[in-house]
Amino acid sequence: MSVLRRCLYPGSFDPVTVGHMDLIERAAGLWDEVIVAVLRNPAKKGCFTLEERLELLQACCAHLPNVRVSHFEGLTVAFAKELGAQAMLRGLRAAGDFESERALAQLNQMIAPEIETVILLGRPEHAAISSSAVRELGSFGGDISALVPACIEQRIKQHFKPTAV
Amino acid sequence: MSVLRRCLYPGSFDPVTVGHMDLIERAAGLWDEVIVAVLRNPAKKGCFTLEERLELLQACCAHLPNVRVSHFEGLTVAFAKELGAQAMLRGLRAAGDFESERALAQLNQMIAPEIETVILLGRPEHAAISSSAVRELGSFGGDISALVPACIEQRIKQHFKPTAV
Amino acid sequence: MSVLRRCLYPGSFDPVTVGHMDLIERAAGLWDEVIVAVLRNPAKKGCFTLEERLELLQACCAHLPNVRVSHFEGLTVAFAKELGAQAMLRGLRAAGDFESERALAQLNQMIAPEIETVILLGRPEHAAISSSAVRELGSFGGDISALVPACIEQRIKQHFKPTAV
Amino acid sequence: MSVLRRCLYPGSFDPVTVGHMDLIERAAGLWDEVIVAVLRNPAKKGCFTLEERLELLQACCAHLPNVRVSHFEGLTVAFAKELGAQAMLRGLRAAGDFESERALAQLNQMIAPEIETVILLGRPEHAAISSSAVRELGSFGGDISALVPACIEQRIKQHFKPTAV
Amino acid sequence: MSVLRRCLYPGSFDPVTVGHMDLIERAAGLWDEVIVAVLRNPAKKGCFTLEERLELLQACCAHLPNVRVSHFEGLTVAFAKELGAQAMLRGLRAAGDFESERALAQLNQMIAPEIETVILLGRPEHAAISSSAVRELGSFGGDISALVPACIEQRIKQHFKPTAV
Amino acid sequence: MSVLRRCLYPGSFDPVTVGHMDLIERAAGLWDEVIVAVLRNPAKKGCFTLEERLELLQACCAHLPNVRVSHFEGLTVAFAKELGAQAMLRGLRAAGDFESERALAQLNQMIAPEIETVILLGRPEHAAISSSAVRELGSFGGDISALVPACIEQRIKQHFKPTAV
Repeated sequence: MSVLRRCLYPGSFDPVTVGHMDLIERAAGLWDEVIVAVLRNPAKKGCFTLEERLELLQACCAHLPNVRVSHFEGLTVAFAKELGAQAMLRGLRAAGDFESERALAQLNQMIAPEIETVILLGRPEHAAISSSAVRELGSFGGDISALVPACIEQRIKQHFKPTAV
Repeated sequence: MSVLRRCLYPGSFDPVTVGHMDLIERAAGLWDEVIVAVLRNPAKKGCFTLEERLELLQACCAHLPNVRVSHFEGLTVAFAKELGAQAMLRGLRAAGDFESERALAQLNQMIAPEIETVILLGRPEHAAISSSAVRELGSFGGDISALVPACIEQRIKQHFKPTAV
Repeated sequence: MSVLRRCLYPGSFDPVTVGHMDLIERAAGLWDEVIVAVLRNPAKKGCFTLEERLELLQACCAHLPNVRVSHFEGLTVAFAKELGAQAMLRGLRAAGDFESERALAQLNQMIAPEIETVILLGRPEHAAISSSAVRELGSFGGDISALVPACIEQRIKQHFKPTAV
Repeated sequence: MSVLRRCLYPGSFDPVTVGHMDLIERAAGLWDEVIVAVLRNPAKKGCFTLEERLELLQACCAHLPNVRVSHFEGLTVAFAKELGAQAMLRGLRAAGDFESERALAQLNQMIAPEIETVILLGRPEHAAISSSAVRELGSFGGDISALVPACIEQRIKQHFKPTAV
Repeated sequence: MSVLRRCLYPGSFDPVTVGHMDLIERAAGLWDEVIVAVLRNPAKKGCFTLEERLELLQACCAHLPNVRVSHFEGLTVAFAKELGAQAMLRGLRAAGDFESERALAQLNQMIAPEIETVILLGRPEHAAISSSAVRELGSFGGDISALVPACIEQRIKQHFKPTAV
Repeated sequence: MSVLRRCLYPGSFDPVTVGHMDLIERAAGLWDEVIVAVLRNPAKKGCFTLEERLELLQACCAHLPNVRVSHFEGLTVAFAKELGAQAMLRGLRAAGDFESERALAQLNQMIAPEIETVILLGRPEHAAISSSAVRELGSFGGDISALVPACIEQRIKQHFKPTAV
């Protein structure tokens, strides 16, 4: 009999990018259930509110039946245990991210050895795409259409539109 | 209904180390079935023969009911497809290995997009442990007991013992 | 008939260092015209004002007939297009800067494929020299004479001099 | 006749970790005298006060007769010269720290060529352990017992305990 | 009056890939003349002969009027001087190539300071594509059509075809 | 009473470079005694014989009273113990060397925890200088005078001189 394979994919998703969506879709093919969860950090004001991030993620994941959108606060491994997930997914875009991901994985293994950190490599054509690139380009009025999923492009653009007086 | 999750862990395993075994055990907890497969490379004479490598791996994996030992030749992704595996496991020991793993994953994604390369990070205390470290230390008569699984330590040591005249 | 080769070298230059000047002089030998441009970032208060940075750069570039000092705001590639530059110059001091430069170059290629990012490597003896090193060393009263061009050394030192009461 | 070998080990130690202690103990075997010195940075409010950091370090170094705990302000090399130290110790945990350490060493060599920067590699099992990991984990109420020396574990835990109302 | 800007792009090109061609086309837009030159290394037997490599390059560069294909032996900078080139082009695919490129550039600057090494970053989607990937994939009978320029695909495939008995 | 501080600096020194000499001179100021030892590797034919390497090193170290030149075979840590050295010196030239040095240091710590691996960073202007750069440049008839110590320049050049017929 096969065990239910469940994976937590935590992040800030401020906002979700095409890079995140690529990972979510690939994860949906590898696990029985994938929980995409926004980390709520009260100490850090984001560009999008928690509610907006969740809405954007839900709009993007609607076509993936085994993906669920959620949010949490505190230690990620504690939330993974609560969910009954065996694995925590992290995307790696470039060599420069390796060491910080490794340190995080090692700390998590010390705290919760039963949760495995699993890494998928981002597609090379997405290597420069990040939430902060969306925010920076958006705030300068640059074209962000190659960086965010098509289904939320209008909402993101609206967010960065200068308010009429 | 849950799909059977199958993963290929390819390598040279010349010979298997404690670092390999850590990955195999962790993989056994993440997938329904794990196939550990020795890549047979006719162009490269190893330290241990294909038969020896398979025997050593089998001895080390005997306690893992969902792990199978195998071997193959040619393209790894072709063998993964033949097995019906969704994923191919690679271990990452250090930042220095990242770029070559990334290039390999990217090539494999070009050739066989249906097979995902999944990465697990080696334990930091295993970072210096590799088959080539075993071979080099063994050939100098150094103590390899911290590098190879206990159950095959004697066989490995025997291999490196200078032949009496 | 040869096209006029024009290159934009953007930066904060807060303040200009011997490392920047080495790149500017080498660029002056590679392009017909080099525009050194200070990025004005209203959100970030620098150590030197925009006017001071421009003056310091102009003093340092006076001997280079094909180098022009300028300033801009907003997206760098937009300014490069406005100038009619084919290339944007970036200096790379160390492996640690590679990934962020690569991400920037990739984003700029998405937005403006007609502008090429060209990289020159900093001289190894300049690898530790940066505007922030000048600012930090200067604020501690350390000797910054090996870090900034000789012609502006006095002005920089004056800047960091504790005000008499 | 042998010269007295003295080494300065500077840092923030906010708070001291098992990684720091491993380096201090190894340094105590390599030099005749080791001065562990907390850099007082008036511009940066730490998690622990200067006095607390010094007390925690002293409690941890009490068993090492040739180790002295101290503090300083301003340029580290100036303090090293004042102490009559020939060497300044830096720990390197991961490849990602290399470039910044190299830049620092190079700047210090420009300013004070008579002081050598000497590097010891952190143990791999400590690679993820840092003061900031202690602070972050502590503030979430996570278990920090594997990260800090046993003799100060209670004091550190007390620090992060939520105050009763 | 504008100086003629000439650039040498040296390499093994064993065989030329889509990654090389991308760089050549971008270089053709940045310099008045680009010389693509195969380094003949008598000590190293390649997969393709010097003549084959030159023919393949010429077929691929036929549409670029300011690109010339050539070959040389010995020190690259000596050939650059002979050509009257001001610059030598190197492509950088990934962070892992940075250090060796930097060492090469630094050595060349010691030997011939008048020749600048200029770096263009490879496109991220080409990061895994190299001559050695073509050779390895080709020798296994894998599909190399995404790795080599379309105009030479048939010739490359022919090269790797098993000879009928 | 102060312990005698002894350090082993092992290497191939095929041949010694200005980078090696910089490290040896700095080490001579940090330890009471420095033993520079050529690793004799019977399996690898070098460019210079063991005897030549030792002679070149001795010529270069003659002015350093606390430096001794030696040679050994087998495990480096075994030789360090035999010498009564507390430390083994390694030079680090660039980030790209970090991981292999780390793996080596970690293996040595497993085998011989009483021998510390101590790292000094090479000077940035020496970053591209290595024995293999000397050999390659020398074999092409390039000018190696900036790469090797002045006192042995003639002998090295003689080595690479084409023999008259």
